[in-house]
Amino acid sequence: MKKTALIMAGGRGERFWPRSRKNMPKQFLSLTDDGKTMIQLTVERISPLVNMEDIFIATNRDYRGLVREQLPDIPEENILCEPVGRNTAPCIGLGAVHMAKKYGDAIMLVLPSDHLIKYNSIFLGTLSDACDAAQVNRNLVTLGITPDAPETGYGYIKFDPNKSLGRALAVERFVEKPDLETAKEYLASEQYLWNSGMFIWKISSILANIEKHLPDTYAGLMRIGDAIGTDSQEAVLEDEFKKFASVSVDYGIMEKADDIYILSGSFGWDDVGSWLAIERHRTSNEFGNILSGNTVTIDTTDCIIQGGDKLIATVGLEDLIVVDSADATLICKKDRAGEIKKVLEYLRMCGHDEYL
Amino acid sequence: MKKTALIMAGGRGERFWPRSRKNMPKQFLSLTDDGKTMIQLTVERISPLVNMEDIFIATNRDYRGLVREQLPDIPEENILCEPVGRNTAPCIGLGAVHMAKKYGDAIMLVLPSDHLIKYNSIFLGTLSDACDAAQVNRNLVTLGITPDAPETGYGYIKFDPNKSLGRALAVERFVEKPDLETAKEYLASEQYLWNSGMFIWKISSILANIEKHLPDTYAGLMRIGDAIGTDSQEAVLEDEFKKFASVSVDYGIMEKADDIYILSGSFGWDDVGSWLAIERHRTSNEFGNILSGNTVTIDTTDCIIQGGDKLIATVGLEDLIVVDSADATLICKKDRAGEIKKVLEYLRMCGHDEYL
Repeated sequence: MKKTALIMAGGRGERFWPRSRKNMPKQFLSLTDDGKTMIQLTVERISPLVNMEDIFIATNRDYRGLVREQLPDIPEENILCEPVGRNTAPCIGLGAVHMAKKYGDAIMLVLPSDHLIKYNSIFLGTLSDACDAAQVNRNLVTLGITPDAPETGYGYIKFDPNKSLGRALAVERFVEKPDLETAKEYLASEQYLWNSGMFIWKISSILANIEKHLPDTYAGLMRIGDAIGTDSQEAVLEDEFKKFASVSVDYGIMEKADDIYILSGSFGWDDVGSWLAIERHRTSNEFGNILSGNTVTIDTTDCIIQGGDKLIATVGLEDLIVVDSADATLICKKDRAGEIKKVLEYLRMCGHDEYL
Repeated sequence: MKKTALIMAGGRGERFWPRSRKNMPKQFLSLTDDGKTMIQLTVERISPLVNMEDIFIATNRDYRGLVREQLPDIPEENILCEPVGRNTAPCIGLGAVHMAKKYGDAIMLVLPSDHLIKYNSIFLGTLSDACDAAQVNRNLVTLGITPDAPETGYGYIKFDPNKSLGRALAVERFVEKPDLETAKEYLASEQYLWNSGMFIWKISSILANIEKHLPDTYAGLMRIGDAIGTDSQEAVLEDEFKKFASVSVDYGIMEKADDIYILSGSFGWDDVGSWLAIERHRTSNEFGNILSGNTVTIDTTDCIIQGGDKLIATVGLEDLIVVDSADATLICKKDRAGEIKKVLEYLRMCGHDEYL
């Protein structure tokens, strides 16, 4: 069966401030040694499985230019701009109606644009197995990450070890981000995987599930679909999309649907949640520093320094993150990377939106 | 007797990098809360004692523009530019011949342009006493700072407690920067003061001493003096000055002269040797931070942050110095401030003179 992909690239994360901004979110940044941006790596990663003309990008109007610039080989009509953000269920629905119009039915991969994967061949093998499972009935298939720590920052998915379809295991339930105690229990039980936010299904399967679990959204999506290719395409999209309830696919569909399967993956998945993550993806020098741009480091160890043209000179530093951008410089103790958002809260409070 | 002053402003220090540069040395920087530059404060400090038109600035051609800009009330002909740097003895000699030409004889204060003094009225009182002592015979008078620690970074001056002239004590000898053991002995002896580099004498006294101890320099200075006001003034200065031996007034004159007196001062003198010094002169906030420019500090304590227009955001920092400039940012652990010169050595080695 033909394979298509919807890459979700509408996110506005702020964890990579001051490089990530409202007008330059993480998926468009390069955080790896190869200089490619996150979304470029996402497309490149699935290119053995999906043709370029069958890849759709869901984003919003602010980022259309960035998508076209960074992914010139994606057909322009495959760039779908949500008029407003309504979380992942309407986003996926929009992709599905466009794909249904073009292909009738096909396998649809749904992928975030801002994750990194280290072992692409293992990932592709897992995806391929997932496609097989997705062809059966109206199965909804997801990829789960085998946990290596009781993380409280991820959703978890409980599977039933006694019910499987090939390598795919039947899902018992989706659960929200747990507290630490619960996360430890999940880990000990060996029946929970991390929710990666990656999905594989037939276009027809997801649309049927939207019809069943989110009937209002489904009706709107049908009107949007009918208008595709007509003069009123944009007006109908604008009109219908903003009426959609804002709901995640996890909550709106996956927690309610039957026939959900999960494939566990150990392909070096990383959601690249903060500047600290680049330690896992960039090469450090003999002093443990990860340096880019114009730097002079004197007796400086285990630092992440992301400079540019402007010289950054350091003396006697350790365990710091330094990130320079055109109008702002961040200096943050490594173990406080999660608190960068406090800087943005403060700037927002003071009305300094130019830095956001 | 008329009082004149020579302010020495030719220094090219690099301890305040990246704010201080080859074309912007420390004396032209503002490091205090009041926003005034070091040389402006130096002139302002002595203004109750010396008329503006009797203040001379010794500098070099590169800094003539800065002097005129920062000290618009100093007559242009009082800005003396040394063609090359030859240390303090020729610099002071040049000032003396210009002053001799203009005034015949007068009291001449010689002051560095890059020190800070906290208690100006005490300082002026000490200077006034020094002027009195300088009027007697051919006395050379200096100000000594009462030590409060066995500093190894300063020269010391030993006085004879049993020989005095008013409040001035006779100097036994000038000594170079000591090692720590020696500095401790000096402190314990209670007979040593720090050499502040500030001198008070009659123009005739210093010229007589230059004639005696540096006769070649004296001969050249006389030729320079004869040419002042003639068409060949610049050519003679250029020609003679570069033939001068490079020698400090301490070594060339003070260590050899008779009739040297010292006045001890406790007027809050500070030679402002590094970024750390500004902790003694700038007001810190409730978290011990000294901030200037555009900053957002989250859980940041005891830091010195010298920003500008560009936003500097910090998270979880302590005891750091952060200094931003147009083309370079320095981040330095406080206790490593002395090692900023290593950054400059590295830049010089790599041929990056644009940052020096």
